[in-house]
Amino acid sequence: MRVLITGVGGFVGRNLARHLLAAGDRVSGTYVDDRPALPGLAAADLYEADLLDPAALARVLRAADPEAVVNLAGLSHVGESWQRMSDYFRVNVLGTENLLRAAAGRRVVIASSAEVYGAVPAARQPIAEDEMVDPRTPYALTKAAAERLAFAHGAVVARSFNLVGPGQAPTFALPAFAAQLAAIARGEQEAVLKVGNLSARRDFVHVDDGAAAYRLLAAAGRAGEIYNVASGRAPSIGEALERLMAISGVPARVEPDPERMRPVDLPLLLGDNRRLRNLGWEPQRSLDDALADLWETVRPRREVPAPGA
Amino acid sequence: MRVLITGVGGFVGRNLARHLLAAGDRVSGTYVDDRPALPGLAAADLYEADLLDPAALARVLRAADPEAVVNLAGLSHVGESWQRMSDYFRVNVLGTENLLRAAAGRRVVIASSAEVYGAVPAARQPIAEDEMVDPRTPYALTKAAAERLAFAHGAVVARSFNLVGPGQAPTFALPAFAAQLAAIARGEQEAVLKVGNLSARRDFVHVDDGAAAYRLLAAAGRAGEIYNVASGRAPSIGEALERLMAISGVPARVEPDPERMRPVDLPLLLGDNRRLRNLGWEPQRSLDDALADLWETVRPRREVPAPGA
Repeated sequence: MRVLITGVGGFVGRNLARHLLAAGDRVSGTYVDDRPALPGLAAADLYEADLLDPAALARVLRAADPEAVVNLAGLSHVGESWQRMSDYFRVNVLGTENLLRAAAGRRVVIASSAEVYGAVPAARQPIAEDEMVDPRTPYALTKAAAERLAFAHGAVVARSFNLVGPGQAPTFALPAFAAQLAAIARGEQEAVLKVGNLSARRDFVHVDDGAAAYRLLAAAGRAGEIYNVASGRAPSIGEALERLMAISGVPARVEPDPERMRPVDLPLLLGDNRRLRNLGWEPQRSLDDALADLWETVRPRREVPAPGA
Repeated sequence: MRVLITGVGGFVGRNLARHLLAAGDRVSGTYVDDRPALPGLAAADLYEADLLDPAALARVLRAADPEAVVNLAGLSHVGESWQRMSDYFRVNVLGTENLLRAAAGRRVVIASSAEVYGAVPAARQPIAEDEMVDPRTPYALTKAAAERLAFAHGAVVARSFNLVGPGQAPTFALPAFAAQLAAIARGEQEAVLKVGNLSARRDFVHVDDGAAAYRLLAAAGRAGEIYNVASGRAPSIGEALERLMAISGVPARVEPDPERMRPVDLPLLLGDNRRLRNLGWEPQRSLDDALADLWETVRPRREVPAPGA
């Protein structure tokens, strides 16, 4: 299968590209600014193309001629979206619209987010795809709007819950914890770990399982259909932190930091993944696997003396 | 012409209905909750229908069988949209989408707002319709998203600047000033007028001129085209307040009220109205006319003794 990934240099994009290449797919990808120079991506065809540039998108679609497009380009930080509302609208909504137009006639999978579900009462969780959307943040608003455009163009919508794994930016909670633990282990930070709201419960999915879900949807997702990408379990962020601290073996005192609290934080987001399971998907990795893989990429290495030193 | 107005009980809806009836059009309208009982609307066919209820919309479209639909239903208060983001998304985006589907094949005019332009540098004002959108508030985000759906469905988009006139809710600045002046004149409030940001400059359009613009677009707007509904002048809110105080003749001291300041307030919104002028529209009324008409509806009346009293 020939698959084009927009935002191939991002956290999910890189992992999806690796997953597709390992499965024998032909992979192309778009990036903005810096060309991603990543091990395992050498076999992918990379194009610099901004979603806000329809002419560039048309060129990429012609050159790559994909059978399916997975749109992972976008701005994805809920907290930041309050300050950068207009940027989030442009990239996530206008960018998606440009891509849907450029890819007309091909299968397109739009990456949306569980954040669009908003404050679903615990009694109606795990959340099924037919739950009415309830966007409570600018990020969620832009994702919910992009979904409507996806439906108008007959695209497939993937609503990802919290993807976790190596390579996620430390503006997100778990990578931020891992980076702090690594700094503590290196003696660069006193043994105090600054945290935001630990009581929020989230449905964590290993990014490799997420990649498998996107591949499946690129191959077999139904036009105009929504698919939750969810594990079906929702530990608290505090529980995930405890697991990460145990995996890292780095002792630290946990301290709340008002700077890390968000204006709106949903208490629980737990996904019903039956629709994706019915398509043949099954999560293969645990939260511990994801945390171990994350820690492996940031943990301090013992210095190996250079030969002859 | 048979025209269906959604949100006919609202500020613009009532004025548009009167305008259309005066022009000999057949008018129908939708409302939610309370049936609008207004003089001058008796000749209109009213239907209770929520934009979030596709079946109700389908019934209204069948019954009213309009040649054109003007979508004025929606939530329109910028300040409130920060607290009610999800409601704004549902009504303004999902509601618009439902209407566009229900009205497929008919001319639809979607009421958008100059707020979608955001922070356009003064040097690029008056703002023309091809200016890139820059939504800075949840309200503007929902309007910009609804516009994209309008384009996908070949609807006409009206971007209204600040419509002013009788019947606007006192949650908006000028009606709030008028209500306070009336309370002061009745002796119910000390002679202190609480105000928000007076330096913001806005392009005020008499609601009757706005109604004429909507009628023209319902008859002759181009599918997929955007039309600014603007006067081409942008006095400050403070200047408008001075004019209103002069018109009312009520003396009062002006006092800033932090409660009335908004998280984001654009310094200038001035519209280029050439596209609508090219269609034959011309504003007929001044800001003073709008303020006088507004004051007329809220000013205290001298008590007339009942006959025989």
